[in-house]
Amino acid sequence: MSALPNAYAPAPLPAGFVEGLREVFGDRLHLGEAVRRQHGGSESHFEVALPDAVVFAKTTEEVVAVVKLCNAAEVPIIAFGAGTSVEGNTTPVRGGVTVDLSEMNRVLAINPDDFDCTVEAGVRREELNVALRDKGLFFPIDPGANATIGGMASTRASGTNAVRYGTMREAVLSLRVVTPDGRDIRTASRARKSAAGYDITRLLIGAEGTLGIITEVTLRLHGIPEQISSAVCSFDTLAGAVDTVVLAIQLGIPLARVEILDDVQMKAVNAWSKLDYPELTTLFFEFHGSEHAVKEQIATVGDLARQNGGSAFRWSNLAEERARLWKARHQAFYAAVGMRKGCIGWPTDVCVPIGRLAECINETKRDLDSASFPAPILGHVGDGNFHVIFVIDPNNPAEQREAERLNARLVERALSMDGTCTGEHGIGLGKQDWLLRELGDDAVDMMRTIKHALDPKNLFNPGKIFAD
Amino acid sequence: MSALPNAYAPAPLPAGFVEGLREVFGDRLHLGEAVRRQHGGSESHFEVALPDAVVFAKTTEEVVAVVKLCNAAEVPIIAFGAGTSVEGNTTPVRGGVTVDLSEMNRVLAINPDDFDCTVEAGVRREELNVALRDKGLFFPIDPGANATIGGMASTRASGTNAVRYGTMREAVLSLRVVTPDGRDIRTASRARKSAAGYDITRLLIGAEGTLGIITEVTLRLHGIPEQISSAVCSFDTLAGAVDTVVLAIQLGIPLARVEILDDVQMKAVNAWSKLDYPELTTLFFEFHGSEHAVKEQIATVGDLARQNGGSAFRWSNLAEERARLWKARHQAFYAAVGMRKGCIGWPTDVCVPIGRLAECINETKRDLDSASFPAPILGHVGDGNFHVIFVIDPNNPAEQREAERLNARLVERALSMDGTCTGEHGIGLGKQDWLLRELGDDAVDMMRTIKHALDPKNLFNPGKIFAD
Repeated sequence: MSALPNAYAPAPLPAGFVEGLREVFGDRLHLGEAVRRQHGGSESHFEVALPDAVVFAKTTEEVVAVVKLCNAAEVPIIAFGAGTSVEGNTTPVRGGVTVDLSEMNRVLAINPDDFDCTVEAGVRREELNVALRDKGLFFPIDPGANATIGGMASTRASGTNAVRYGTMREAVLSLRVVTPDGRDIRTASRARKSAAGYDITRLLIGAEGTLGIITEVTLRLHGIPEQISSAVCSFDTLAGAVDTVVLAIQLGIPLARVEILDDVQMKAVNAWSKLDYPELTTLFFEFHGSEHAVKEQIATVGDLARQNGGSAFRWSNLAEERARLWKARHQAFYAAVGMRKGCIGWPTDVCVPIGRLAECINETKRDLDSASFPAPILGHVGDGNFHVIFVIDPNNPAEQREAERLNARLVERALSMDGTCTGEHGIGLGKQDWLLRELGDDAVDMMRTIKHALDPKNLFNPGKIFAD
Repeated sequence: MSALPNAYAPAPLPAGFVEGLREVFGDRLHLGEAVRRQHGGSESHFEVALPDAVVFAKTTEEVVAVVKLCNAAEVPIIAFGAGTSVEGNTTPVRGGVTVDLSEMNRVLAINPDDFDCTVEAGVRREELNVALRDKGLFFPIDPGANATIGGMASTRASGTNAVRYGTMREAVLSLRVVTPDGRDIRTASRARKSAAGYDITRLLIGAEGTLGIITEVTLRLHGIPEQISSAVCSFDTLAGAVDTVVLAIQLGIPLARVEILDDVQMKAVNAWSKLDYPELTTLFFEFHGSEHAVKEQIATVGDLARQNGGSAFRWSNLAEERARLWKARHQAFYAAVGMRKGCIGWPTDVCVPIGRLAECINETKRDLDSASFPAPILGHVGDGNFHVIFVIDPNNPAEQREAERLNARLVERALSMDGTCTGEHGIGLGKQDWLLRELGDDAVDMMRTIKHALDPKNLFNPGKIFAD
C-alpha cells in the first residue's frame, strides 16, 4: 500500500468534545475501531488512517452542528459518502471526525417538467435512477461504482456517459453546502443557466470536501431515450479503434457512451464475466435516440469501424443483453483485480486531447510491455480519458515502486500532450505533485488562497489536493 | 439613464503613474476624452463614467505590466472587450485604467483533431467562426452581439445555441489569466474534462473581470453539422409554443436553437427586417444533424407544434434563407429599439426552470399590458431564459422608474419560481440587490470572501457584482 502524504498524528480530542458530539448524534456517534476502520480509507492503494470519531448525519442542521463543534475545538472534519473514491480522497490523514452522509438518502423532489431533481448528498446514483424511472427520466453520470451523489459532486466524477451528457460539472444545477464557518448556503437557483455572481457551485464541485460539506444536490436530468442500443466491435489496431471514435465525433454523431478496452482487459473481462469476446482492442458503444436516429447512428459508426479495421458490429437493443454487456464493462476493474489472487488494483486516470489519445495509449502500452504485473487499459475514449489498472501485490514494495514509476511516466506523457493527471478521480492524496506540475505553482497558489480564505483553520479534509 | 451604484469620484492618479503607463504602451495609451468616453460604458441603460486612462494591450506581458503598475499605485483596473455587455459590467464607476483587449485578436491555435482552439481574449466570435470554417468546425456560443471571446467568458454568456451546446461555462476548456497580484497563470490543460483541483476556470468565467483579466481562452469546438435546417412556426397561444418545446426536449430531440418571440416582438421584427411573418407568438427553430436525422426532427417537432396550436412549419435548409431568418432574430433588439424614435432598450434577463416558463411569460405579459412604452419579449425557450426589452425614453425619469418597477416585479416572479435574476447578462451594476435576494447574504458572502482574498485592494473592476 502507498504511504500517506501530509499525514501526522492527530492531536487528542479536547475535553468535552465527544460529549458535544454525543448530544447531537446519540447512538449515531461511533468511537469503536470497526466503524472507524470502515471510514479509514476508500477503494484506493493508500494505507488506512482512522478518524477519531464517526458520526452519521441525518439532516443539514446536524452537519451544521458538527461543523460548529469541530470549528470551535479545531478538530478536522471529513465528509464521507460511499467510500468509492480511489485517490485516498476521504482518508482522515490527521484523524478528526468523519461525517458519514449515507443516511441522508432521501430524494427530496423530482420535477419532471423542469427535468431536474433535488436529492440529499447520500443518495446513490443507482437508487436515484430507480426513483426516476417511472417519470421517464434518468440521471446519466455513471462512474461505474454505485457512488453517492454528494461524493460524485465532490470529486467532479464522470464516467461512461460523459461524452454525451457531460460530467458532474455539467449535471449539477445547485448545491446546499455547509461552509467551514458553519453557514448553510444554497449556491444557485434551479434555473438551467445563470450569470448570477461567482460560480461557487462549480468551485465546490471537485473541491473534495476541502471547502465545505455538500448536503443536498439539485441535478439536471434527461428523458429516457425512445431507443437505446449497444454495440461491441473489436479492432486489429488501437489506432483504428480510436480513429473510428474521433471520426464519429467529427461527424457530430451523438454517441451516448463509447468505451475502449485493450486486449489485456478483454481477456480479464471474458474470464470474470464468462463472455467470449475476441481478445482484441474493443469498443463498447451505446446509442440513444429515436428508433430511426439510432439505426442511422449504428449504420454510420459501423461503416467507420469497418474502414478502420473493425469487426462487424455485435449489437443489440434488448435491455437484458445491454445490461449484461454494461455489467461486464462496469466490472472491468474487478475483472482486472481478479487476474491475480490477493492483489489490489491501482487505477491511473490521465486524460488527453482526443487527437492525442491513440498515441498516448500506444506509447503507454509499449511502456507496460516490461511490467512485471498485469496492467490492463480501459478508457472513456470520447473524452480522451483512460485508466491503466496496475494489478499489484499490496505486500510487495518492489511492485509498488514499479507502479509508481509507470504512473509517473504515464502522467508525464499526458502532460506533455497538454492533458491532465486526473480526468475524474480527483487529486486526493495521490496527485498533489502532479497538480503542481500540471498547472504550476501560481495557479495552485490561487487555489491555496481560496482554501485559506474559506477555511482559515484548515479543518476541512486537511492534507488533500495540496499540502499546507 | 440609470444612476450608477457604488460610484464615487476617483482619486487623482498618483504622480508618475501615467509616465509608467506610457513607457509600456507608448501611443496605445489614451488620455483624451473621446477614447475614454468610448470606454465609459457599454450597451446598457446606465450612465457613463469615464476611466482616467485607456490602454490597448497587445500581449499578456503588457497586461501583467499594467496590473503591476495599478497594483503598486492602487488604481482601479477594468478589462474591456467589445463593450456589448448590458448591465454596466465594464463601466469604470471609480475611474482608473481601462485595459482594452480588442487588439489581442489573434487565433493562436486551431486543433481540428482535438476539437479545440486557443484564441486571444479580444477575438470576436464571428471572426473566430470565419477562421474555423475551412476546418469543418464551429464555435456555437452566440449571444447575438459580436462580442469578444474574453468578454463572453467574463460574463458567462450564452445565447441562442445554449439549449444544445451549453454556455461559456461548458465551452471553455482553459484560460490564461493575469491575477490581481500580477501573476500570469493558466487555469487548466486542454483535456476535455479534469478533476485536477479547484475549478478556477469556472470561477473566472462569469467573474466579470473582478478576479483577474482573461488574456487567452481555449475553447471546445464542434463539427459543422452535415445538415442545418431552420423553421418558423407561429402559435395561437404562448403556452402552446412553450409546451411544444418542453415536449420536444422530453423526447430527447436535440434542438440546436429554439427562440421565442412574442406578438409585439414579431411586429417589430417584421417592420425592422421587412418580413411578413404572422404577428403572433412565434418559435424560430434550428436543427443540426445528418440529413435523415434533421428530417426526422423537423417531422416530430412539426407534429408537436400542430398538436399545440402551431401553424405549419415554414422551413428551409438553404443557407441564404437561414441567414436572413437568424439575422432578423439577431436584430430583434435593434428592431425593438426601432419601435420608438430616440429611445434606448433596457433588456431584462430572468431564467426560470423550463416547466415554469409559460406561466412566467404569461404573468409577465399581463403585467406589461399596463406599460406606457413598448415591451416586446424574446427568449431562449429551451433554457427557460427570456428577455423583456423596455423601449424607453432615456430623458424621461418617469419611464425609467416604471421600467424599474416592472423589472422588479419580473425578477420577483422569477425568483418565486426558483429562477435567477440573470440568465446570461451578469450582475454588473444592475442586479446586485437581486443577487442578494436570490442566493442570500451567506452565499454572497462566500463570493465576497473569495474576492477579498484574491484582490485585497479591490482594484479589479471595483463596484461590480457586489458593493464593497
